[in-house]
Amino acid sequence: MAITATHSAAETGTPGSASPSFGPAVALSCRECGERYPLGPVFACEQCFGPLEVAYEFSGVTRESIAAGPRSIWRYAGLLPVPADVAAKPNLAPGLTKLVRADNLARELGMRALHVKDDSGNPTHSFKDRVVAIALEAARTFGFTTLSCSSTGNLAGAVGAAAARAGLRACVFIPTGLEPGKVVMAAVYGGQLIAIDGSYDDVNRFCSELIGDPAGEGWGFVNVNLRPYYAEGSKTLAYEIAEQLDWRLPDQLVIPIASGSQLTKVDKGLRELIALGLVEEKPYKIFGAQATGCSPVATAYKAGREVIQPVKPDTIAKSLAIGNPADAPYVLDIARRTGGAVEDVSDPEIVDAIKLLARTEGIFAETAGGVTLGVLRKLLAAGTLDPDAETVVLNTGDGLKTLDAVGAGVTATIKPSLDAFLEAGLVR
Amino acid sequence: MAITATHSAAETGTPGSASPSFGPAVALSCRECGERYPLGPVFACEQCFGPLEVAYEFSGVTRESIAAGPRSIWRYAGLLPVPADVAAKPNLAPGLTKLVRADNLARELGMRALHVKDDSGNPTHSFKDRVVAIALEAARTFGFTTLSCSSTGNLAGAVGAAAARAGLRACVFIPTGLEPGKVVMAAVYGGQLIAIDGSYDDVNRFCSELIGDPAGEGWGFVNVNLRPYYAEGSKTLAYEIAEQLDWRLPDQLVIPIASGSQLTKVDKGLRELIALGLVEEKPYKIFGAQATGCSPVATAYKAGREVIQPVKPDTIAKSLAIGNPADAPYVLDIARRTGGAVEDVSDPEIVDAIKLLARTEGIFAETAGGVTLGVLRKLLAAGTLDPDAETVVLNTGDGLKTLDAVGAGVTATIKPSLDAFLEAGLVR
Repeated sequence: MAITATHSAAETGTPGSASPSFGPAVALSCRECGERYPLGPVFACEQCFGPLEVAYEFSGVTRESIAAGPRSIWRYAGLLPVPADVAAKPNLAPGLTKLVRADNLARELGMRALHVKDDSGNPTHSFKDRVVAIALEAARTFGFTTLSCSSTGNLAGAVGAAAARAGLRACVFIPTGLEPGKVVMAAVYGGQLIAIDGSYDDVNRFCSELIGDPAGEGWGFVNVNLRPYYAEGSKTLAYEIAEQLDWRLPDQLVIPIASGSQLTKVDKGLRELIALGLVEEKPYKIFGAQATGCSPVATAYKAGREVIQPVKPDTIAKSLAIGNPADAPYVLDIARRTGGAVEDVSDPEIVDAIKLLARTEGIFAETAGGVTLGVLRKLLAAGTLDPDAETVVLNTGDGLKTLDAVGAGVTATIKPSLDAFLEAGLVR
Repeated sequence: MAITATHSAAETGTPGSASPSFGPAVALSCRECGERYPLGPVFACEQCFGPLEVAYEFSGVTRESIAAGPRSIWRYAGLLPVPADVAAKPNLAPGLTKLVRADNLARELGMRALHVKDDSGNPTHSFKDRVVAIALEAARTFGFTTLSCSSTGNLAGAVGAAAARAGLRACVFIPTGLEPGKVVMAAVYGGQLIAIDGSYDDVNRFCSELIGDPAGEGWGFVNVNLRPYYAEGSKTLAYEIAEQLDWRLPDQLVIPIASGSQLTKVDKGLRELIALGLVEEKPYKIFGAQATGCSPVATAYKAGREVIQPVKPDTIAKSLAIGNPADAPYVLDIARRTGGAVEDVSDPEIVDAIKLLARTEGIFAETAGGVTLGVLRKLLAAGTLDPDAETVVLNTGDGLKTLDAVGAGVTATIKPSLDAFLEAGLVR
């Protein structure tokens, strides 16, 4: 299997011609040198080894056509590398999660207008269902029979579930030491779940090795050889936020950084909406959030550097524990270009933020959600984030998957009698 | 606080006159003797101690008015004891969860048309968000400042989250020995979480005691003194199923039994839809599902009895572990009247069914979902359930809350090298 693109190997058409299998997508394009390739299962430029991304020729997408679509990410099929009939094929139909107007939280933080985009409402309770749904469709088109990935946990569950429903085999790779919720959820769908004795970055390297080996033949690695398609799924967060704000862009967005792909693609989605006239053009600021225990991008941002120094992660925010994030340069560029920032918070700050969100809005976020809200607080305190500007903070996962991080439990255990209750002094 | 209804104590109007606070609801009515009471925080008839339920005078509800409503249970506000503006008040906006067309599962079971109503998509990932949302609104109307409940786990989380978002205090009671996912989720929202050393039935008795004590003054127990309102929330499952089937009733429904209230109210909802002309009248069969380790209703059903013998629960399906289900007589009546049945499955059958659903449809159910699917299989095998009739099976909760029941884990742990992977013989 080709790792870099070769014009002859990809057989799905010539660059620049739309294929019904990929809807409005017309080519893969190198982010670094701009070289274009036909739409194939490739992810790196053969000229410069830069990452490939999907290029489009959009047509006929209006607010009305979107509103008439399914109640899932497939309402945006006309903006994604998927066929028009994608919703009819077996898939988990993720997306259209709640954008919660967080007035209690805003009041506590002294903000004017704050929304939580709560992706714990997705089928496997993380934003990964979005990206996997797009990769699954590409896998079907390319004839792959096994769906695979390297994962910090959430992706493993999303791939397992999507493959089960689509009738594909799943074989997913995770680092050892993940949370029980993520491990069981990744295993329950019946695919193979392989723990790799090492960090996520080790798992990632292993997968790149496997993909070049005959043993990986016929395998669609959603975040490796299907990555250009997969990554586009994060654009749907931008589309949904804008549509849920009645086709308006927020002023500020706070987005977690793992590989950095999500942040990069949310920005791409917002720019597409402006270019297509679906929203009025206006400035917006994008803020990136990391855990201090894995903050190579925040470190580079603060030092004014354009490249990051890889780190060995040590944080409770395991879903963000990628020490060498592939999209770091783009994240740094977006934060700087939009007037945002990249910041990090400590593990105790993450837990505090999880509890704050639960207490004020009844939303139980996973550690990654604690990272974004923690960073929002920190940036507010520093005056970097404007409390009067309309802000969206992302919760990309579910607290049920990171139970141990929170340390919440019963107030008291008592005998089943009124006397015992009254004696315990619990009445307020 | 009055436990039974007294006409003088309830001050919200005379029976039969609509109050804006309760929308189309006009009175409480005794299920046993028919005596009517004004809408108040009462739950038992002072004449015969029978349970009270909400009586309505519906008007102006059409398919079109529902379709124009919010994307939550509040689209059915005109059929619930809530004010017309209920959606505008801080709440979790539950409901409109997916009705998944389960073709893979149907194929494996030899069925023609099977759907899974997947309530793991609710904000706290169980159907309890529906009932709590209605109870919360009643609590606000009655001026209660603390939201409380006895819970087998899911309800505790739903009450905690709803109270947090609404700005009420929460104090919830659970039996000891619940799953960690349920305990942490119930605690994280910041309310008091009291474990009672005993069974759920002990917790329930304790709460009835507390409600009559001055210490419980100002407390709304969602499933005790607010129970008539709370229980109505389950009707929304019936409404959604019918609407998601394009305003058609299914032929068969498989519903879990804890207190039996959910099954009873789904039937009530279906009958309302017929009476209002929102669906065409047709016969439907309702099947009740219990775990063998807590199957008093199934036992009574099989013995042809009309009253149950309370049991001491011993099952992994803790959310259904109610040994003395309050609505048992109504469940038995509905199963017999509609031509359904009540059946039970063992713990291993529950786990098998959880894995079957995950493997075929990518849905990770909690143990209660394993109970309904397990019972469906058993009834199919017995010829009691028609494989050719359109069937809906309920998944009322989330597998992430009952992780230990499943026992799924990694296939293998290997060193991060291709050689280690190939040597492990994992390639298929």
